[in-house]
Amino acid sequence: MDTMRWENGRLILLDQTKLPGMVEYIDCRDCETIVEAIRHLRVRGAPAIGAAAAYGLVLGVQGTGAGNREEMLSAAREVARNLAATRPTAVNLTWALNRLLARLEASTETKREALLDLLLQEAHAIYREDVEGNRRIGRFGQELVPHGARILTHCNAGALATAGYGTALGVIRAAHEAGKNVSVYADETRPLLQGARLTAWEMVQENIPVTLITDNMSAYLMARGMVDLVIVGADRIAANGDVANKIGTYGLAVLAREHGLPFYVAAPLSTVDMALASGRDIPIEERRPEEVTHLAGVPVAPAGVRVWNPAFDVTPARLVTAIITDRGVAWPPYEESLSRLFRQR
Amino acid sequence: MDTMRWENGRLILLDQTKLPGMVEYIDCRDCETIVEAIRHLRVRGAPAIGAAAAYGLVLGVQGTGAGNREEMLSAAREVARNLAATRPTAVNLTWALNRLLARLEASTETKREALLDLLLQEAHAIYREDVEGNRRIGRFGQELVPHGARILTHCNAGALATAGYGTALGVIRAAHEAGKNVSVYADETRPLLQGARLTAWEMVQENIPVTLITDNMSAYLMARGMVDLVIVGADRIAANGDVANKIGTYGLAVLAREHGLPFYVAAPLSTVDMALASGRDIPIEERRPEEVTHLAGVPVAPAGVRVWNPAFDVTPARLVTAIITDRGVAWPPYEESLSRLFRQR
Repeated sequence: MDTMRWENGRLILLDQTKLPGMVEYIDCRDCETIVEAIRHLRVRGAPAIGAAAAYGLVLGVQGTGAGNREEMLSAAREVARNLAATRPTAVNLTWALNRLLARLEASTETKREALLDLLLQEAHAIYREDVEGNRRIGRFGQELVPHGARILTHCNAGALATAGYGTALGVIRAAHEAGKNVSVYADETRPLLQGARLTAWEMVQENIPVTLITDNMSAYLMARGMVDLVIVGADRIAANGDVANKIGTYGLAVLAREHGLPFYVAAPLSTVDMALASGRDIPIEERRPEEVTHLAGVPVAPAGVRVWNPAFDVTPARLVTAIITDRGVAWPPYEESLSRLFRQR
Repeated sequence: MDTMRWENGRLILLDQTKLPGMVEYIDCRDCETIVEAIRHLRVRGAPAIGAAAAYGLVLGVQGTGAGNREEMLSAAREVARNLAATRPTAVNLTWALNRLLARLEASTETKREALLDLLLQEAHAIYREDVEGNRRIGRFGQELVPHGARILTHCNAGALATAGYGTALGVIRAAHEAGKNVSVYADETRPLLQGARLTAWEMVQENIPVTLITDNMSAYLMARGMVDLVIVGADRIAANGDVANKIGTYGLAVLAREHGLPFYVAAPLSTVDMALASGRDIPIEERRPEEVTHLAGVPVAPAGVRVWNPAFDVTPARLVTAIITDRGVAWPPYEESLSRLFRQR
């Protein structure tokens, strides 16, 4: 099952809003279809958004009449702006778009077809590197996982959130492949239930033992001694190690500390935003009230009730035991360890 | 809007599973209908369950052929066993049933009609005392609420969870009535959404400003400085002040402590079980997986996924700032303060 694949000049994208009930692919022949897919979370997860946006930029530039290098550059910047505006928190989105723009700017090609091919090759590289990076995250991370570990994860940082294999779930997969006999607690992750719909589904597909809980059960799970460590993904990590991730992550980190459990974050270096000193400056997306007030189209709250619906929160670095990247594990203090990983790259 | 009322020899019970979409009452003419209603959470909340069970005992004994005192007593004990088996955690259920049985045992009446009337009068007393008790909880509790307080509450400890007025929401109502300009954050309380369906609905009805969030947003709400105190109800309180309440309560208590916020529990003394030394001995109900895997009848998780679904958790007394009862506010150490309130009664 691919999260996305490039085929015959178009992006075939798994519609994750239909899971686990239906496995449906969207045929993306233009940038607008990808913009809509990102905005409505048909594709979600920071690395997956980055890869999808890269292909969106290819399709977007292709769809303009731009013929020479200057026109292409101008068109690409315009298309990138539209794609970047879909969601504010995941930094991989702008990271991927900037990589394509930089490739275009650095090129000496002048012909439309050559330049389009160059953009496509860069998008492919982002896709391929993400899968390879996740395998490395898995290898580095699984060394931190004890035999028989019972692992709590939040939201979906799996194959579906990336080009493949997953970040947090990549670590779990690698530990499973290493014969460590791990088991997983997936919290459902309201409002959009990525834990129930996506993480539980991925684990069931791979025969990794998984138990579903609601978000508010994790504290009691820990108090009962039923879990050994927590591992989550990230949407943006600041230079000091503060982590923006799906709403609810911060609470889990506080609870893990309270119960003496390690709290790991797994993410590629492309999720680390060294331009941001701390998590205070990470923009947090707020989404529609209907995500909270309606379930499967059915209203579950009184009409007109006010709603606060932030899609992410920020976990301060002091609560993060380690950050598992595609270039190695960063330990506190993160200013130093993250910088070192960037320099080694 | 009554949670329940006795009318023409039957209990008219609001079906809370239909809220907020529909206001529907169930006509309970026999004990079985009340057993079913408690089991399926048509009536829920410790004090409301206690009152409903008391009326259920009346109807149950009435439905038997028992004619004399001995037959009545034997029938009443049998009916009480059935009612007590509906849900294990809320102590008000057995408390109310025992009160009716004790009344019967202490009586010197011998005639069926007189004994039935005596049971009914005791059920009425439980109902009436609960509303009065909640008004007192409100008065005691609102003194702890600062002007303009932004209050987070969990599940529904409102008029719907009691014979009327509510415990945690009773305190909020009393603060509102005292002109304190309070506002409320209701977390939705998965899996059965009592916060979204019931608490938000009660607050909207009374024009008390309310904002709905998902359970996993409370930590970030606190970190952002958007809330001043937490107040919840209880299903059973041990002699040492440990509190069993809706799943998720314990996590909120840990988070409140982390953010320096007061964490109050509001409950009548009938919820305090002095026979239990600590919360370790409180039985915790586990409910059907479908409550977690299905929303409005639609599956949201892969078929056959394992689920852990405890309906309650236990918050250790050390995390509870104060317990607001119908006889006054208990402060730590709770062994002493709760005993004192019982003696004063």
